[in-house]
Amino acid sequence: MSRENNNTKHQVGIAVIGAGRIGLVHCEALTRVPGVQLVAVADFIYEAATTAAEKFHIPLVFQDWKEVLKLPQVHGIVVCSPSDTHADIIVAASRAGKHIFCEKPIDYDLKRIDLALTAVERAGILFQLGFQRRFDANFRRVREAVKSGEVGTPYMLHIVSRDPAPPPISYIKQSGGLFFDMMTHDFDMARFCMGSEIVEVTSLGANLVDPAIGEAGDIDCAVVSVKFANDCIGTIECCRKAAYGYDQRIEILGSNGSVNIGNNFPNTAIISNSQTIHRDLPLNFFMDRYKEAYAREMETFVDIIQNHKTPPVSGLDGRIPVVLAYAALQSMKEKRTVRVDEIDSTASVLAHPKM
Amino acid sequence: MSRENNNTKHQVGIAVIGAGRIGLVHCEALTRVPGVQLVAVADFIYEAATTAAEKFHIPLVFQDWKEVLKLPQVHGIVVCSPSDTHADIIVAASRAGKHIFCEKPIDYDLKRIDLALTAVERAGILFQLGFQRRFDANFRRVREAVKSGEVGTPYMLHIVSRDPAPPPISYIKQSGGLFFDMMTHDFDMARFCMGSEIVEVTSLGANLVDPAIGEAGDIDCAVVSVKFANDCIGTIECCRKAAYGYDQRIEILGSNGSVNIGNNFPNTAIISNSQTIHRDLPLNFFMDRYKEAYAREMETFVDIIQNHKTPPVSGLDGRIPVVLAYAALQSMKEKRTVRVDEIDSTASVLAHPKM
Amino acid sequence: MSRENNNTKHQVGIAVIGAGRIGLVHCEALTRVPGVQLVAVADFIYEAATTAAEKFHIPLVFQDWKEVLKLPQVHGIVVCSPSDTHADIIVAASRAGKHIFCEKPIDYDLKRIDLALTAVERAGILFQLGFQRRFDANFRRVREAVKSGEVGTPYMLHIVSRDPAPPPISYIKQSGGLFFDMMTHDFDMARFCMGSEIVEVTSLGANLVDPAIGEAGDIDCAVVSVKFANDCIGTIECCRKAAYGYDQRIEILGSNGSVNIGNNFPNTAIISNSQTIHRDLPLNFFMDRYKEAYAREMETFVDIIQNHKTPPVSGLDGRIPVVLAYAALQSMKEKRTVRVDEIDSTASVLAHPKM
Amino acid sequence: MSRENNNTKHQVGIAVIGAGRIGLVHCEALTRVPGVQLVAVADFIYEAATTAAEKFHIPLVFQDWKEVLKLPQVHGIVVCSPSDTHADIIVAASRAGKHIFCEKPIDYDLKRIDLALTAVERAGILFQLGFQRRFDANFRRVREAVKSGEVGTPYMLHIVSRDPAPPPISYIKQSGGLFFDMMTHDFDMARFCMGSEIVEVTSLGANLVDPAIGEAGDIDCAVVSVKFANDCIGTIECCRKAAYGYDQRIEILGSNGSVNIGNNFPNTAIISNSQTIHRDLPLNFFMDRYKEAYAREMETFVDIIQNHKTPPVSGLDGRIPVVLAYAALQSMKEKRTVRVDEIDSTASVLAHPKM
Repeated sequence: MSRENNNTKHQVGIAVIGAGRIGLVHCEALTRVPGVQLVAVADFIYEAATTAAEKFHIPLVFQDWKEVLKLPQVHGIVVCSPSDTHADIIVAASRAGKHIFCEKPIDYDLKRIDLALTAVERAGILFQLGFQRRFDANFRRVREAVKSGEVGTPYMLHIVSRDPAPPPISYIKQSGGLFFDMMTHDFDMARFCMGSEIVEVTSLGANLVDPAIGEAGDIDCAVVSVKFANDCIGTIECCRKAAYGYDQRIEILGSNGSVNIGNNFPNTAIISNSQTIHRDLPLNFFMDRYKEAYAREMETFVDIIQNHKTPPVSGLDGRIPVVLAYAALQSMKEKRTVRVDEIDSTASVLAHPKM
Repeated sequence: MSRENNNTKHQVGIAVIGAGRIGLVHCEALTRVPGVQLVAVADFIYEAATTAAEKFHIPLVFQDWKEVLKLPQVHGIVVCSPSDTHADIIVAASRAGKHIFCEKPIDYDLKRIDLALTAVERAGILFQLGFQRRFDANFRRVREAVKSGEVGTPYMLHIVSRDPAPPPISYIKQSGGLFFDMMTHDFDMARFCMGSEIVEVTSLGANLVDPAIGEAGDIDCAVVSVKFANDCIGTIECCRKAAYGYDQRIEILGSNGSVNIGNNFPNTAIISNSQTIHRDLPLNFFMDRYKEAYAREMETFVDIIQNHKTPPVSGLDGRIPVVLAYAALQSMKEKRTVRVDEIDSTASVLAHPKM
Repeated sequence: MSRENNNTKHQVGIAVIGAGRIGLVHCEALTRVPGVQLVAVADFIYEAATTAAEKFHIPLVFQDWKEVLKLPQVHGIVVCSPSDTHADIIVAASRAGKHIFCEKPIDYDLKRIDLALTAVERAGILFQLGFQRRFDANFRRVREAVKSGEVGTPYMLHIVSRDPAPPPISYIKQSGGLFFDMMTHDFDMARFCMGSEIVEVTSLGANLVDPAIGEAGDIDCAVVSVKFANDCIGTIECCRKAAYGYDQRIEILGSNGSVNIGNNFPNTAIISNSQTIHRDLPLNFFMDRYKEAYAREMETFVDIIQNHKTPPVSGLDGRIPVVLAYAALQSMKEKRTVRVDEIDSTASVLAHPKM
Repeated sequence: MSRENNNTKHQVGIAVIGAGRIGLVHCEALTRVPGVQLVAVADFIYEAATTAAEKFHIPLVFQDWKEVLKLPQVHGIVVCSPSDTHADIIVAASRAGKHIFCEKPIDYDLKRIDLALTAVERAGILFQLGFQRRFDANFRRVREAVKSGEVGTPYMLHIVSRDPAPPPISYIKQSGGLFFDMMTHDFDMARFCMGSEIVEVTSLGANLVDPAIGEAGDIDCAVVSVKFANDCIGTIECCRKAAYGYDQRIEILGSNGSVNIGNNFPNTAIISNSQTIHRDLPLNFFMDRYKEAYAREMETFVDIIQNHKTPPVSGLDGRIPVVLAYAALQSMKEKRTVRVDEIDSTASVLAHPKM
């Protein structure tokens, strides 16, 4: 007795634009989401696209991302190309009626962000931004503790955000600077976990890790004090280097107590010898640390397409942290508290070539 | 510019026998292993097989496991059927030239185990036993700490093994008893982490969790002292119930220090309130706790087929813990230390209907 | 065979001024320091003084602190009276040639602080200020990690400082405010652990814990960003209430890694039940948390008298945090970064009756 | 206005017999107990006695302990002399009507123990045995968790007991062996925390740390399985060497969950560098680890004398662990479970010259 299995589940066709590091992460996550057909991959560097296609059995390969928008079997695109292409792709994909998952940032120019988001709105397509930490079990537990009232009325927040090592200077130079490149993620976590908007920022930066970063016009250490609409206050600290690896923590104090999260580790082993009691280093960088979060992020993107749900990370969620980064930059320069509503919607990183 | 991707990678055809809980875990893991073709699924309960087939897009579905052995496109089988069918399936699959992954136990009758292992040997097929903890990052770290000399010459071992709650009495009755059903896993971990064979056991059991377990002729708490061939000593404790969930730990002390592992948790959040400083419960049971281990176990099985490697968990690794369980049972009854070489190879659980 | 023991060790005569809570802590610590003779105790509330005298076998009891300065057998005084009496007592004791241990603050009026410190300097007596955290094993370990180069070149600092519950409003009203009453301790820890002076502060305050504190003109939550002379940056957060008890932590990140300290607990027990994995609350408040530190502080005071050593916490160490509190207050009001050298030495808390 | 303080509190005169390491610990603790007069110290090594007398201002010094029993101002004695003198001192002190605190063991000969305890009983004096762990905050928390029902009905126990390094071989030779010298403490903790008597033991020993210990007829690693009168089971493991220092832990599992305690550390600092996340080693040995416990033990002894209370650690509490040690020794030799009631009251360590 035997039978051919005939699965009739609604399949979602996805094309991935950009087959670099993060593009491959999303491809792998997508191969594990039931109901997904990886239809096409595009990358300006054609070899990158073909390599991805072979690894993940993707039938169609392109150099030009515009080609994937023409494919009727593509329902949604995953944008992992360089940041300065995001806005254009969003506008074109919106017009082509494709749902969009876009890696952060949409852009660092608020006018271009607004252009992109307007295109999305007009097209009525679904748009999800790539703040993967929102899908991380630790940060979600913090959000839950605040939202459910477990910590009571929130008072204060502190975020620690440290990379294992600075990126190459070439990357630094085109990164938009620490507030844009690193801290936008943390601004998002502050808003997400607190459930309230930041209304004032005061910032302080330093160049302590590598003089070359300073010479490139950037900082590598920063602290930002924030005030929320709900009157809570907090601090966010970023550093480009932690010798022990990737360090991502948050603590929120409220009237009933506090919630704070630590890092994730490859194992739970404790080694005790004649020198110390120790454990292995935490998961080294975002690819390992947020592997599960990336998987859930893609599952969510497929789910919102399949069931036409509201994306949990919207275009506005991508715009606000950029505004906050402008405010932080201005505060550091002017050595004063900056109200977020001071930032003009025409602010552009091009107007701030050097910090 | 576009191109059809033509992946020529060597595909491995796998059939899964038994579509119960653990069968589904292995199916899911297999769908994520590159190069695997899930060819067929069989289950005596046909609905279970069809459900699995639909979920994992498996083309062929059978009620009788013998059918899958006839398929030429099946290179390996994954045996997840009831324990008392394992030996027969192993013998038949060996004759059919299929590589075998088999859930533990092979059997609890040493004669039947030996029959099965002889069939495997004669056929020259690859056989891997389902001790998934060997693929867990924590236990592997312990093994590494011992093997590499990080803890020096080993002295002592302690294993804690607790289930969140006892299984139904119906399961208990046909389980073979705590030493066979639970502690064989721990005997394997003791051997694996210590890298030495157990030569003596002394055991103590109690019925404290549920009187119904005692009435069924079993115990629900046990401690076993072990002596290893390398002269190390240790203790293993098992309990059918830990109110806080699944608890799997090991500690090894050596001349340079110790290594010990804790449980895995769903998140790292610490909540502090006016009563306590606390965290969420550990991952609840083996399905969550060893999810990664099951995935690596299947990757390994596919890899050994693809590259004809030596399986990391052999048939003998399945036989030895059963011998140890007999020794533990005898020690408990006779209130004395039992040498492992006292256990006759004709020992059979049928000869021990009641503990 | 027996012998009368004739101990000839140099005895130090100490008088305690102020027999309130902290006065009693110091009395108890002093009874345990070898070589100390508790000679006299004075308190404006005479019953407080007699109670202390009975408990600690102190032979002489006074209402007026001036009396103890006349006693030739008093070598040093321990000042635990209300803050507004400290400066006067310091001036008088200096003139009387008594060594002085003084609880913080010397005063909140910089002119009065300077008067007191000038008197100390002219008299050439030994003066130690009561920043007990400098004697705490955790904070000392942080200092050591920075000083020894264990964390490399320091980059950033974060201090968490939370009381279990706000003091009575009556206390709040005369406390000088959160920056003076609470955060001066944390400014001292920042300087002590970092080994560098704070040169800029930017602060943010909020009244979230209790509206009555706001009505009294104070805040109950505050964050202060600091910049050090060594270019490091950091943040200090204070809150008048943590439901789980006293919370005193510090973290310093440097080029080689980080050091951070947690709280102290009454025991190490971990309780696991069907709800959580938890432990008892940390030691509740400074009396328990710093019991050992207070003991070491008194041992040190006696030791510096016996051996004429340099006090480890000087008068200047008492002055600087007050200047920093003025800077923080001004920054909060003016919503800008304040350079510490902007604070005029005539700054007086009397000039800032309300925040 | 001044007044002579006239403290009329009931003073307790104490004499310390034995001025070695533990004698000095008790002297120091006693100097900190209000109401204690350290009257005399005796040691066969007269210099040890005079050194202690000078350090702690003890007026009377003797070589012969019999002298201190003649002093009317001595209400209680603290026995810290070599173990083989304990029984004789207990008998003599009982006859002299002195209350007795005695370091463990009373003796290892059960007949001599019974002689001593009979003398105590006849004299009606108060007798407290030196199991200081009963006064440790961690072990007390375990006891409380069991007694209060916090962990529910107890099921199982595990004790880890490791010294930082073996004592000199000369000490080993006269120590009575690991079961007597080390594990009697752990047997006491098992009884104390579980609140039930041990009725069966099964033991296993090994000589792995130092061959010289084996040559001296002793073992350096041991595990003992125990069965309690309340049907619970458990394991105790001892080792003479843990490279990372003193390791004293216990875990009890019950129907509602578990309690387990860790070690105490000199500070809470966590250092993270490019190699590991680590902390300093635990408090090194019993002098540091149980400093607080020793202090509370002496406070308790003074309190029971002052208020004629029942001692919390009785003579019987000293006898039972010795019986258990005999049972463990016999079990190891005979490779079988030994019922505690098999041990004859005439058992004597002299009859077991070599293990």
